[in-house]
Amino acid sequence: MPRVFNFSAGPAMLPTEVLEASAKALLDYQGKGFGIAECSHRGKEFDGVVDEAIARCKALLGVGDTHDVLFLQGGATQLFSLIPMQFAAGRTVDYLSTGEWGKKAAGAAKELGAKLNVVASSEATNFDHTPAPATWKLSPDAAYLHVCSNETVHGHRLVELPKHDNLIVDASSEFMARPHPMERIALIYGGAQKNLGPSGLVLALVRKDLYARIPEKGLPKLFSFKNQAENKSMVNTPPTFGIYILLEVFRWLERQGGLAKMEALNAAKAKALYDAIDASGGWYTGTIADKAQRSHMNLTFKLPSEEKTELFIKEAAKNGMVALKGYRTVGGIRASIYNAMPLAGCQQLAQFMRDFQARNG
Amino acid sequence: MPRVFNFSAGPAMLPTEVLEASAKALLDYQGKGFGIAECSHRGKEFDGVVDEAIARCKALLGVGDTHDVLFLQGGATQLFSLIPMQFAAGRTVDYLSTGEWGKKAAGAAKELGAKLNVVASSEATNFDHTPAPATWKLSPDAAYLHVCSNETVHGHRLVELPKHDNLIVDASSEFMARPHPMERIALIYGGAQKNLGPSGLVLALVRKDLYARIPEKGLPKLFSFKNQAENKSMVNTPPTFGIYILLEVFRWLERQGGLAKMEALNAAKAKALYDAIDASGGWYTGTIADKAQRSHMNLTFKLPSEEKTELFIKEAAKNGMVALKGYRTVGGIRASIYNAMPLAGCQQLAQFMRDFQARNG
Repeated sequence: MPRVFNFSAGPAMLPTEVLEASAKALLDYQGKGFGIAECSHRGKEFDGVVDEAIARCKALLGVGDTHDVLFLQGGATQLFSLIPMQFAAGRTVDYLSTGEWGKKAAGAAKELGAKLNVVASSEATNFDHTPAPATWKLSPDAAYLHVCSNETVHGHRLVELPKHDNLIVDASSEFMARPHPMERIALIYGGAQKNLGPSGLVLALVRKDLYARIPEKGLPKLFSFKNQAENKSMVNTPPTFGIYILLEVFRWLERQGGLAKMEALNAAKAKALYDAIDASGGWYTGTIADKAQRSHMNLTFKLPSEEKTELFIKEAAKNGMVALKGYRTVGGIRASIYNAMPLAGCQQLAQFMRDFQARNG
Repeated sequence: MPRVFNFSAGPAMLPTEVLEASAKALLDYQGKGFGIAECSHRGKEFDGVVDEAIARCKALLGVGDTHDVLFLQGGATQLFSLIPMQFAAGRTVDYLSTGEWGKKAAGAAKELGAKLNVVASSEATNFDHTPAPATWKLSPDAAYLHVCSNETVHGHRLVELPKHDNLIVDASSEFMARPHPMERIALIYGGAQKNLGPSGLVLALVRKDLYARIPEKGLPKLFSFKNQAENKSMVNTPPTFGIYILLEVFRWLERQGGLAKMEALNAAKAKALYDAIDASGGWYTGTIADKAQRSHMNLTFKLPSEEKTELFIKEAAKNGMVALKGYRTVGGIRASIYNAMPLAGCQQLAQFMRDFQARNG
């Protein structure tokens, strides 16, 4: 079966080369007579996978010994709780609430009894933008500032990360789709299932000075990022096959030329689609108030009616472009175009948009 | 490359048919043009996987509406913390400490400040047996009794589960390798990476009346088993590809004839190896004090010297039998023979043991 262009918001399209290499390793790893999912995480085969994954991750991000690379479980949602549990240190925690995910992260901190300060929110306008940094009400003494750098559901992004001594970034839906300024980041994390691999795996990079805040009592040892770092993410059995797929994605990213190359490609992909929206004379309407904030990963737009939206989704699927339905709280169309989506997929969708409008406008 | 007999304690050997079906689904799911790891957990493809996995799991275990089937993350180790967090309800918690894992589970409860009562321990003799039930010091009012039904590291098992109104069973290394008396079990759980699938996935069955104990405050919603049950284990994105492999294992178990068939086969496999130990005139020595408690999953034994042990492991590997090294705290040999290990693998290892003794005895 030929591959379709899969615009799923996640779990999402993976590079075909990555899938092929991973399927092969599932059946047999380097001619050893067993697959990579069938060997001990403490054996030399998997240890080699982890070491290479850590090294390639650091090389791709251009980060040295300041940060540890962790492979965790439970999704970014679990980290929404684990982060305040170990790094709030009894101080106020600042959160930017600019969409479904920024809000959820803040909610998890509050649920745990942290002293939550929402520095800014765009909920009143259904999260259609990020408020201007000048309006943010930052605490003078916050333990950290948490931002979601790309809002998957609502479709906008932080073009530039704010400057903050202790910046924590949920980068789930744009992780390694662009370079990340690691010198400005205390902790960056994300579920793998957008740009990096299968679900069930979280990639996190933690600046080592944060460990000093981890409470000595009350936090299960498994949850301590320091403990995970000291054990190469193997305090207990990690999701070994997921980490293997992630390593294949790292190799693939290097073959593509690295993160700056991906950023340029992703910008071109997004432009192909935003141009189709903007040239439609208002027939397609983007949902983001400020065009400069439009996401390069999750492109949200609406058609003139529900009926046309449904027809659009149906006809696109017939033409090999699937998973375009918008999230229930936003509606319309959402095209997620992570690293694995080729430019040709975005060009084909843009052409389809023009044709569809011509037929139905 | 021909498949070897892989005696890894976990992540462990998986049925070849399962690996082949899973590799195929990774590349393309039912001719849809995308793989099963690349589609939304909320779409119809994966929803079908989850529904079928729940139904087959219940059918294999012969359990009805009394229990929910959950697919969780973080390994059994994470559940060591989540269980007392939500089910201790401020009462004493009873733990049987009969090996590495029973002890770790108890330690996690203590770490959280639970009122821990260790009903019995065999640590003084390096966990070489389970103390007789008549000697257990059960609390009259315990929230639950926690047991590890098969000790992976030390190699013994509970032949029969104790009777207790609120019995919690860590069955990680024997889950679905035998029938489980669900009418006697409040909660049974285990990491998938022994008998059931890849690492990064936990299967749990929870009796619904336990939910009433979940505290209203302080427990992150993600961790609530009630919340997970109400959301078909999709409070956030679950490890979708791991669940798919698990489904393939369920299908495979049904094709083998179900859990009673697996129990009989596993007993025959274990007998082939224990017979080789017992017929060796003491050259091979089992590490378990009471033969009746010997594990049918993890077979631990020693050779007369370190040198012979190393030679045994090396020669076995040359003959297509790998991962036989014992755990560091026990030493010697450990042969893990989960569901996916065929009888032929155990027979071949038994024959190798006899030959090796003849050459080196």
